[in-house]
Amino acid sequence: MSDAPKIAIVGSGLIGCAWAVSFARGSCTVSLYDRDSSTVAQAPERVRTIATDMEAAGLLGDATAEEICARVSVADSLEQALSGVSHVQENVPEKLEIKQAVFAELDKLAPADAVLASSTSALLPSAFTEHLSGRARCVVAHPINPPSLIPAVEVVPAPWTDPDVVERTAQLMERIGQKPIRMKREIDGFIMNRLQGALLQEAFRLVDQGICGPEDVDIGIRDGLAPRWALVGPFETIDLNAPGGVRDYVERYGGMYERMAPSQRDPADWRGPVLDTIDTARRATVPLEDIPKAQARRDRRLVALMQHLGNADKKDR
Amino acid sequence: MSDAPKIAIVGSGLIGCAWAVSFARGSCTVSLYDRDSSTVAQAPERVRTIATDMEAAGLLGDATAEEICARVSVADSLEQALSGVSHVQENVPEKLEIKQAVFAELDKLAPADAVLASSTSALLPSAFTEHLSGRARCVVAHPINPPSLIPAVEVVPAPWTDPDVVERTAQLMERIGQKPIRMKREIDGFIMNRLQGALLQEAFRLVDQGICGPEDVDIGIRDGLAPRWALVGPFETIDLNAPGGVRDYVERYGGMYERMAPSQRDPADWRGPVLDTIDTARRATVPLEDIPKAQARRDRRLVALMQHLGNADKKDR
Repeated sequence: MSDAPKIAIVGSGLIGCAWAVSFARGSCTVSLYDRDSSTVAQAPERVRTIATDMEAAGLLGDATAEEICARVSVADSLEQALSGVSHVQENVPEKLEIKQAVFAELDKLAPADAVLASSTSALLPSAFTEHLSGRARCVVAHPINPPSLIPAVEVVPAPWTDPDVVERTAQLMERIGQKPIRMKREIDGFIMNRLQGALLQEAFRLVDQGICGPEDVDIGIRDGLAPRWALVGPFETIDLNAPGGVRDYVERYGGMYERMAPSQRDPADWRGPVLDTIDTARRATVPLEDIPKAQARRDRRLVALMQHLGNADKKDR
Repeated sequence: MSDAPKIAIVGSGLIGCAWAVSFARGSCTVSLYDRDSSTVAQAPERVRTIATDMEAAGLLGDATAEEICARVSVADSLEQALSGVSHVQENVPEKLEIKQAVFAELDKLAPADAVLASSTSALLPSAFTEHLSGRARCVVAHPINPPSLIPAVEVVPAPWTDPDVVERTAQLMERIGQKPIRMKREIDGFIMNRLQGALLQEAFRLVDQGICGPEDVDIGIRDGLAPRWALVGPFETIDLNAPGGVRDYVERYGGMYERMAPSQRDPADWRGPVLDTIDTARRATVPLEDIPKAQARRDRRLVALMQHLGNADKKDR
C-alpha cells in the first residue's frame, strides 16, 4: 500500500521487535533503530522469530512471515530511521534521564508532523516531555507485552498533548489491529496497572488476614472470573448479569459491594509476613530454577489462547 | 462405580440442574428435589439439555449425555432425596428465612454423617446454621454459574463448621473436577466477589473521575489483562513477571502499587452520575432488548473457551 504509514521504532529490544511485527502486520513500513549496535544487530533475527511463530499460530492474518520481515528494516542512524515517518514508537530503558534525552533528540530530528509515542509503563508522559518545543505531539502508547500478541494499548496524554495526537495514535493502533484505551489524562499506573493493583491489593489483604491461601486467590481468578473477563470486560460482565443491564445490576447488587468496601480500604504491607506466605506457596509449586520453564509454558499457552479467541470472535459475530 | 458418592440436590432450578450434571460427570449418583412441583417437572429436560450441550462441546470427559442423565433421578419427597446421601447441595432462593427453614429441615432429615452445603453467594453460612444441632456439618459451597462449566467453587466455613467438613467438601469438589477455594473463615463477598468488587471499585472510580470511558476499562481487562489471568492467576502472574519470582517482583514494582494506593481508597458513588455514563455507553453498544442475545453469545463463546482451555491444558502439561 502506498499510503501505508511509515513508522520508526527507537529501542529495538524485545518490545521494540514485537512492535515492529505489529506495525508490519498492519501494512506499515517499519524502520528500527537502537543506540546499542549489538541490540540492533540481533533485531532482524528477533523480528523473524516472532513473525514465524505468529505465522505458525495463524496470528498474522493474511500476511506471511516473509512479508512482515520485508516491511521491517534496520537504520544506521537515528536520522535515517526517522526520515519520512508519521509515528515514532520509543522503547528505551525505563529511566527518566534516558527518556528525557531521547525525547529531546526525537523532537529535534523527527518530521514536524510525526507523533512521538513512548512505550513506558511506569513514567508519566509529563515527566519527560514538558520542556520540548514539540511537546504537544508527545504521548504514551503503552502496550501489554508482547504487543504482537496482546491487543490492548494505553494511549496517555500529558496535560499539553494535543487531543488530535491522542486520536491519531488511537486510530493508528486500531488500523494495525491493536485495541487502544483512550485516556483523557495521565494518572499513575494508567488504567491497566491501576486495575491490576486494585485486584492485587485485595489479594494480598485476603492472604494477609488469613482468609485463604495464595493458591485460592489464583483459583478464584484463573478458574473462576478470568475466563468470562477474557470475553467480556468487567462493565460488560455486570451489564449482562441483570435483566435490566448495569443500572439494574447496581440496584440489585450495589449494596453487597458497598458493605465490603470499608474492609477494602487499607492495604496490607506487601513486604510483611504475607510475602513469606506467598513466596513459600509459589516456590513449593514452581522452584526458582523452574521459573523460565513456567514462563515458556505460559507463553505457549497464551499464543494458543489468543488464536482461539481471535478465531471464535470471527466465527461468532 | 459402587463407591461413588450419592448426592442430593435441593432446589432444582438452573443452578441445581447444572450441579447435577457436574456431580454426575464425576460419577456420582444424584437425586434432585424441589418443593415446587413445576420446577422439578422441568428438571430432567434441563439436565438433558445441559448434558447434551456439554457432550457436543467435548466437556463431559469420557461420559456420554445418556450416562449423565441415567445417574440423575428426581425424588418425590425430601426424605427420599436425602436417603443414603453423603453430600447435600442446596440451591433454594437467596432469602435468609428460606435458607434457615430449609437447613433446619435438612439437618433433621439427612443422614447424620452427610455434609450440608449451600450454593449461596450472598449469605454468610453463620446466618442460617447457628441454631442447628448439626451446625458443625454445615458449609457453603458457592459456585460461579454454571458450575458445570466454570470450575471454581468457594468452600466457606461458619465459625462452628468442623474443619473436616471443609476438607471433605473440597475433596468431593476435586473428585468431580471442580476447583475448590478453601476458605479459613467466612467474610462478606467470600473471595471471588471481593476480588471482583475491588476491581469494580477501581473501574467505577476511573470513569467517575473522567480518566477514561467505560469501554476503555473493558478493553483493558478483556483485551489486556484477562487472557493471561485465564491461564495464570494474579499471584502466579506476578511470580512469573520477575526473574526472582514474587519476592523480586514486590522489590521491583511494589513501590508503584504503594504510590497509587492512597488514590484507590475512596469508592465512587455507584448510583451517582457515573452510572449514567456507564449506562449510556452500554446501551449505545447493546440496546436493552438485545441483552438476551448478547448473553447467549457470551455463553456460546464461554463454552468454546472452556473447551479450548481444557484441551490446551491437557496437551501442555
